Amino acid sequence: MSMDKLIRAIAEKKNPTVVGLDPKLSYLPSFLKEEAFTRCGANLEGAAEAVLAFNKAIIDAVADVVPAVKPQAAYYEALGWPGVRTLYETVRYARENGLYVILDGKRNDIGTTMQAYADAYLGTTQVEGTAFEPFPADALTVNAYLGTDGIAPLLTHCRARDKAVFALVKTSNPSSGELQDLYLEASDAAGARQTVYDHMGDACEAWGADDIGTYGYSPVGAVVGATYPAQLAELRARLPHTFFLIPGYGAQGGGAKDVAGGFDARGLGAIVNSSRGILCAWQKTGAAEADFAKAARAEAIRMREDLLSAVPVPALAE
Amino acid sequence: MSMDKLIRAIAEKKNPTVVGLDPKLSYLPSFLKEEAFTRCGANLEGAAEAVLAFNKAIIDAVADVVPAVKPQAAYYEALGWPGVRTLYETVRYARENGLYVILDGKRNDIGTTMQAYADAYLGTTQVEGTAFEPFPADALTVNAYLGTDGIAPLLTHCRARDKAVFALVKTSNPSSGELQDLYLEASDAAGARQTVYDHMGDACEAWGADDIGTYGYSPVGAVVGATYPAQLAELRARLPHTFFLIPGYGAQGGGAKDVAGGFDARGLGAIVNSSRGILCAWQKTGAAEADFAKAARAEAIRMREDLLSAVPVPALAE
Repeated sequence: MSMDKLIRAIAEKKNPTVVGLDPKLSYLPSFLKEEAFTRCGANLEGAAEAVLAFNKAIIDAVADVVPAVKPQAAYYEALGWPGVRTLYETVRYARENGLYVILDGKRNDIGTTMQAYADAYLGTTQVEGTAFEPFPADALTVNAYLGTDGIAPLLTHCRARDKAVFALVKTSNPSSGELQDLYLEASDAAGARQTVYDHMGDACEAWGADDIGTYGYSPVGAVVGATYPAQLAELRARLPHTFFLIPGYGAQGGGAKDVAGGFDARGLGAIVNSSRGILCAWQKTGAAEADFAKAARAEAIRMREDLLSAVPVPALAE
Repeated sequence: MSMDKLIRAIAEKKNPTVVGLDPKLSYLPSFLKEEAFTRCGANLEGAAEAVLAFNKAIIDAVADVVPAVKPQAAYYEALGWPGVRTLYETVRYARENGLYVILDGKRNDIGTTMQAYADAYLGTTQVEGTAFEPFPADALTVNAYLGTDGIAPLLTHCRARDKAVFALVKTSNPSSGELQDLYLEASDAAGARQTVYDHMGDACEAWGADDIGTYGYSPVGAVVGATYPAQLAELRARLPHTFFLIPGYGAQGGGAKDVAGGFDARGLGAIVNSSRGILCAWQKTGAAEADFAKAARAEAIRMREDLLSAVPVPALAE
């Protein structure tokens, strides 16, 4: 039922930041890896154990600073099924520590199969009459190239279980414009020229229209990159009920001024992701390996101050 | 390096069919579930074990009839990390039994993250200098909404490790036209009016252009649904070097005549998926539970005969 849960978490922490948990092995201090390899072997299982220990330490260090974390499924899948077990344990641990969890999987498929993805990440799977939560996230990123069929199964869980989705609209990568920036032949509902990303954004507004929450936002959010600040501001005006997940801050080049256009006057309307900037802060600042989590916390605090220099402090005016 | 490996497998079996391994628990005979639940508990782990036993029996039954299987990641993820372990075991078992494995994950992300997906499904992950194959598939389905950045990391593995990808072009679901059928303002390279799916198809041709194989097809294939036979035939003519993965036969309503337009004159150019039709054949024919694999085999043979009534027998003329 809307984006209220995430918005309340943001307002409580006064911080529109989500920490991307995209753990490459090279980001981890060696003592964590050595301990795990000694215990489980220098293999995918050992790597997955090391990543879990890393994630738990990061979560412990940032849980009172940020409202949300965003594990990126790809980095866990690259460690095979033990990595996916670590993804599950990470989602659980983050939620136990009061964090909102956006699972970044960019899933997409036709209706019957999308139902399985929806159940996996936002719902439950029934086994002999008992319901199990395969990956108990709060929100899932999705790719809507297949249209409404790929979104409808998620909306059921958004309504019944207070979940949310973020559909790709204008992504942060250099080649995002190859398709997304192309103009369509047909005009939009207002009679204006429209790009593919405009059309996707309008679809997000339409999918969420029946479920707008207390603060004006629906459970169907959009991914819009910090690396395209003009389009971000344009989409904020175009999509008044669509909450934005903004990647591309920090390592990809976006700054606080670039993301400011994604927010509304209350400091709501968007959450900004940083992955490498926070996870690798210990490497960038030359901190001792043992202080990797402290360095992540310091960077999360620095990022909050940076964002709040350009964005109003989030407040729950309706 | 191209689609040669799949094409040779198709010609060897004289059968352009891929069996979709999309196992819902309701498709499984109860004796398989009871055995697994007794051993592992009536939970996600037990369900994943039952699915693995089911898949192995299906693979055993069809391995000499079909060239390929296509596990759909969603159904494994819906069983949590134990389900993903079953996905891994299924991929391994299918390859050990000589089958080509198309992992249907429709993965997509920006470059650095797509590299992790590419490593997970088509490549290797290094741990302390040793390379591990997280999910050793032959091909991966992908969604190219993010453009070239989301494809380039896969091409490296296609070249170095003889792998392939299938990008979504015109999907089989009812709402696929919401975005895919829209006309773009700009003309295509030939000066003609083009849809979004035309543009995606042309991108597949371009991504594969440097790696065309012995039989004329590149490693960048396209997903085009059987449920849109006119578009399928149109795309076959438009994309001469792009091999098609065709879902939508059987349960979704497509027949042999509908898919025929996806093939070239040698009976190459496409492979047709059937999931429920084969996995649930025992339920549809009223076979005894114990004969579920036999029923799947009979349906795979029936499907081959059905396809070959409308499509030339695949032959390796260059």
